[in-house]
Amino acid sequence: MQIAMVGLGRMGANMVRRLLRAGHECHVYDVSADAVAALVAEGARGADSMEALVAGLEAPRSVWLMLPAAITGDTVGQLLSLLDEGDAVVDGGNSSYRDDIDRAELAAVHGIDYVDCGTSGGVWGLDRGYCLMIGGPDRAVTRLEPVFATLAPGVATAPRTPGRTGDPTPAEQGWLHCGPSGAGHFVKMVHNGIEYALMAAYAEGLNVIRNAGVGARPAAADAETAPLREPRYYPYEDIDLAEVAEVWRRGSVVGSWLLDLTAEALHQDPRLDQFAGRVSDSGEGRWTSIAAIEEGVSAPLLTAALYSRFASRGSELFADKVESAQRFEFGGHLEKKS
Amino acid sequence: MQIAMVGLGRMGANMVRRLLRAGHECHVYDVSADAVAALVAEGARGADSMEALVAGLEAPRSVWLMLPAAITGDTVGQLLSLLDEGDAVVDGGNSSYRDDIDRAELAAVHGIDYVDCGTSGGVWGLDRGYCLMIGGPDRAVTRLEPVFATLAPGVATAPRTPGRTGDPTPAEQGWLHCGPSGAGHFVKMVHNGIEYALMAAYAEGLNVIRNAGVGARPAAADAETAPLREPRYYPYEDIDLAEVAEVWRRGSVVGSWLLDLTAEALHQDPRLDQFAGRVSDSGEGRWTSIAAIEEGVSAPLLTAALYSRFASRGSELFADKVESAQRFEFGGHLEKKS
Amino acid sequence: MQIAMVGLGRMGANMVRRLLRAGHECHVYDVSADAVAALVAEGARGADSMEALVAGLEAPRSVWLMLPAAITGDTVGQLLSLLDEGDAVVDGGNSSYRDDIDRAELAAVHGIDYVDCGTSGGVWGLDRGYCLMIGGPDRAVTRLEPVFATLAPGVATAPRTPGRTGDPTPAEQGWLHCGPSGAGHFVKMVHNGIEYALMAAYAEGLNVIRNAGVGARPAAADAETAPLREPRYYPYEDIDLAEVAEVWRRGSVVGSWLLDLTAEALHQDPRLDQFAGRVSDSGEGRWTSIAAIEEGVSAPLLTAALYSRFASRGSELFADKVESAQRFEFGGHLEKKS
Amino acid sequence: MQIAMVGLGRMGANMVRRLLRAGHECHVYDVSADAVAALVAEGARGADSMEALVAGLEAPRSVWLMLPAAITGDTVGQLLSLLDEGDAVVDGGNSSYRDDIDRAELAAVHGIDYVDCGTSGGVWGLDRGYCLMIGGPDRAVTRLEPVFATLAPGVATAPRTPGRTGDPTPAEQGWLHCGPSGAGHFVKMVHNGIEYALMAAYAEGLNVIRNAGVGARPAAADAETAPLREPRYYPYEDIDLAEVAEVWRRGSVVGSWLLDLTAEALHQDPRLDQFAGRVSDSGEGRWTSIAAIEEGVSAPLLTAALYSRFASRGSELFADKVESAQRFEFGGHLEKKS
Repeated sequence: MQIAMVGLGRMGANMVRRLLRAGHECHVYDVSADAVAALVAEGARGADSMEALVAGLEAPRSVWLMLPAAITGDTVGQLLSLLDEGDAVVDGGNSSYRDDIDRAELAAVHGIDYVDCGTSGGVWGLDRGYCLMIGGPDRAVTRLEPVFATLAPGVATAPRTPGRTGDPTPAEQGWLHCGPSGAGHFVKMVHNGIEYALMAAYAEGLNVIRNAGVGARPAAADAETAPLREPRYYPYEDIDLAEVAEVWRRGSVVGSWLLDLTAEALHQDPRLDQFAGRVSDSGEGRWTSIAAIEEGVSAPLLTAALYSRFASRGSELFADKVESAQRFEFGGHLEKKS
Repeated sequence: MQIAMVGLGRMGANMVRRLLRAGHECHVYDVSADAVAALVAEGARGADSMEALVAGLEAPRSVWLMLPAAITGDTVGQLLSLLDEGDAVVDGGNSSYRDDIDRAELAAVHGIDYVDCGTSGGVWGLDRGYCLMIGGPDRAVTRLEPVFATLAPGVATAPRTPGRTGDPTPAEQGWLHCGPSGAGHFVKMVHNGIEYALMAAYAEGLNVIRNAGVGARPAAADAETAPLREPRYYPYEDIDLAEVAEVWRRGSVVGSWLLDLTAEALHQDPRLDQFAGRVSDSGEGRWTSIAAIEEGVSAPLLTAALYSRFASRGSELFADKVESAQRFEFGGHLEKKS
Repeated sequence: MQIAMVGLGRMGANMVRRLLRAGHECHVYDVSADAVAALVAEGARGADSMEALVAGLEAPRSVWLMLPAAITGDTVGQLLSLLDEGDAVVDGGNSSYRDDIDRAELAAVHGIDYVDCGTSGGVWGLDRGYCLMIGGPDRAVTRLEPVFATLAPGVATAPRTPGRTGDPTPAEQGWLHCGPSGAGHFVKMVHNGIEYALMAAYAEGLNVIRNAGVGARPAAADAETAPLREPRYYPYEDIDLAEVAEVWRRGSVVGSWLLDLTAEALHQDPRLDQFAGRVSDSGEGRWTSIAAIEEGVSAPLLTAALYSRFASRGSELFADKVESAQRFEFGGHLEKKS
Repeated sequence: MQIAMVGLGRMGANMVRRLLRAGHECHVYDVSADAVAALVAEGARGADSMEALVAGLEAPRSVWLMLPAAITGDTVGQLLSLLDEGDAVVDGGNSSYRDDIDRAELAAVHGIDYVDCGTSGGVWGLDRGYCLMIGGPDRAVTRLEPVFATLAPGVATAPRTPGRTGDPTPAEQGWLHCGPSGAGHFVKMVHNGIEYALMAAYAEGLNVIRNAGVGARPAAADAETAPLREPRYYPYEDIDLAEVAEVWRRGSVVGSWLLDLTAEALHQDPRLDQFAGRVSDSGEGRWTSIAAIEEGVSAPLLTAALYSRFASRGSELFADKVESAQRFEFGGHLEKKS
């Protein structure tokens, strides 16, 4: 079917490629003329402005945005003034679901359908397909099914869940209409919150193994160092983390795609020396914890994963100084130097 | 090769079956004569006592134990008196790695090799293979390679990690000699610690989605209830959790075997009404957190997963009462009834 | 000085009493005529409507609100239409500091000063004084100093901090102009976040002592129960928690007012049988964790204290069921009944 | 009464001084002859060896040890060979309660009473008194009551808990016989676990206030930085933390001795520039979390406080690198430099 894509960065461009391969008619626009030209060379139809892009589409139009969250709002505003009743806007980026709720209300005033689509797949999606979590009005979601079906990985990419028979549901193909406006990004948000926790779970566990030789090293014996009661139980200085991650990939309960990636990273660089350990977060993890708090639901792991990212960037320094100051006040404890 | 198995419960029996299928000569013993008979019918050689079992083996003997942790120690003691120098005992159960260290020292006095083998795979291992994490002396581990190779899933059960070429390492086949005595169960212990956290990550995330309709329900408006500032952002009462778990199985970053199982469970029983929510723990999660603490390594997610299991069984009741009592003392707050 | 109080619940009425004792001229209003009459009997001047209250004051007027957060907004709106340029409104309740920021902007349009005042002290404040954390414009804060000074406990209620000499600062008297609008409730919000954590710290510690006899009780020996490796180290079945809380009150590092209250509660009811352990939260703890998240600052204890309150009210049940379902799927584990 | 003190560091020497002031007959020994001489000059009776110390005492003897945990064990062993049936050893240091249980069994073989005494008070104890948490046999605890009563702060140092009448209990005087051997150090251990959490609660809260101006600073706008949705709610750049800590000291719910110390530290050095933020831990916090885990009791705050100390010393670096590596693998994310 005919679909327009605005935003031809890594994600957007690869999604266009996947759509072109399946025979969809893709109209594309980006502030970078080079990005447009590259996809035109692969079969897309280019536009040099939003106006031109919209003008080249047949009603009801479908315009998919793959933009940084910071500029999605303005672009939606511009689009609403260019589109007509019955058209649809899809936000496939990493917007907050709250913006979806607000923008969908505004779009509805114009009779335009606003669809939010959380998209997982990263740099791997072109070949692996994208997992799509969708919110918004039925009318537009139904019309866009061919696009969702193409972008999604397809049922064959995983064994069917035992007990599921008959025609595969959309979820089994890798896309899901989760609910009304914002529901797609809400589910994607929680997905990323879980992702943070899965990553941290492996990271913590590997760190425990990495330090399993602490009993074999000479220990400081001063009042500022907690003694290790039984050093004989911490003799493992040489456990090969890359091989541990690899062995867990087959037959174990902890197998996952993230583990596959972890094994690859450790195989390439067993000490991970190329990384400084400053872990960014891009918003969804924060919003997930905030949602848990506002719902009154406990989410200790999801929040711990988030906080460990904050701490990796030094946010705790002042709090740590407060504790050192308290220890100095009540016990005269001086900080150890290292 | 010739191998003896002691303990023919679900795990032990299936491991014997997998070994028999590959042509190994399996001698078996269990306190249950029926369990022995069942495997004899499938080609194993039965024994009616530990003495008989040992007497039927050629030196150097290999005796694999798949027993509850509580009786492994006594059985090892008995075996050490029956075996000869050069023989090997393998503990494939869920022992603490500390017991391995202690028992291996004792076995070494007799010239017997003690091998610890953490085994993951559960009820699925017969067909899927077992992930084996092994500690102990090289001599025995080398001799037992054919057994490990048969029990392990094999390299074909997962795509090779990019960058790995040439002959697959044992880890790529699903078994790994992790280090000296106890190293196998240590790695398995951390594996289970990670497993607890992965499980809790999905559970927390799904719970956040499940409560996403809190804004659509009438809220209590009393001084004991925190108000929801913007109920309009929590309208999602009907997100289908089984479909959400299913859609994440394809193309997303959070795909895993545990997710596959979660999707299956939710498909069968979307509200999970058959469960009361009392989550047991079998020791490894505790030991992992204790190891983190003794190593001086932070493991907030692994420990949070453990604590949430404790709390699921009501361990916090008294602490909660203390807080209610404090609130009553300083503010005259009476507990809400529900 | 002349001050009007709207809202004569426990907090508001006691604050009026403390102001009357110091000779201030208190005008009072409440929807309950009885509440008004009670304070008129103690020397206040009553009004039977907001209009009458405002009409009885001399400009520049000062109207202090001690109302449930849910109705403060409407009352402020009503007041803004009754007051004149140069008047001041003080919100002394538990509003979100975000509402202060919004309301102060609105009030400023009318030339009215909006002062937010976080108030700690609970049922004890009449005699003990109230700790006041204040935000808003200098003009009003300066004018209201006599009121703040009366409500605050006064410098004599605690030893001066070593190094502080000369005239006591307002903070040493128990009130502080923290910053612009919302700063008072922001500091009060964090104060309550800390309060939750202090309470939980004692609760957790007492719970650890309460269970210190676990080694003296017969343990279940099944695959669903983690074994206790060294029961001999958990023999303490009879430690008297009320006496423990009491002994910590003198000379220890953990002495505090909350500990005093805890000791009192345990002395009265050592098993706390009158409480069900459902711990409410009133918003500030949530907002503190949300602020930490939005600031990118890790606050694991503050959030853990909040989450333990959620969990005390059963919010984790579904998540726990997910974990039980996962365990059943991969290992065939059935839940233990109790 | 007559009492011997071994170990004349800051704690031991001040305890001798407090005992001397009350008229007790103190015999002292330390490996440092200077330390002995200093106390002899203040009225103690010095000894130049353990043997001489013991020889100078009348039976039944009482020898109190205030030694680093690392050498207490050897000293106890030496003492047991010098003392007679009916004598008593008191370990007033920071030993693990598990060592107490083991040592008390050994001492009992010799008919010697082993008393464990957790001692809180730090550098302030000489004047403020020491909070004493005691375990061990009744015979010795009863005999040593005059010593405990002198070292403890005394009932007058805090208001009596409402509801307590008649003669003050020992706990009200600041000392408590908690239970059998180890119970004293067990209660002291949990006391310190609580202490860590109280400290961290204030530290986290102050850090949240310190970063409350994040909305007033220019934000990075890149894909690696989570956007702040509503910067207008984080305008507070100049809240004075020293004044905040001070105001909380009077009339608020969070008042405590630790808060007093925090206020003093912030008054002296508002930015705490003299501290690097490396927070040591001395064992008790670890043991408390381990006890919670072994008891099957959730203690999220106590453990979070411990983990934040580990993290303050860099223990998370490798785990953080793992997460950065994972993000690079699945999304091509490069780490931000700062």
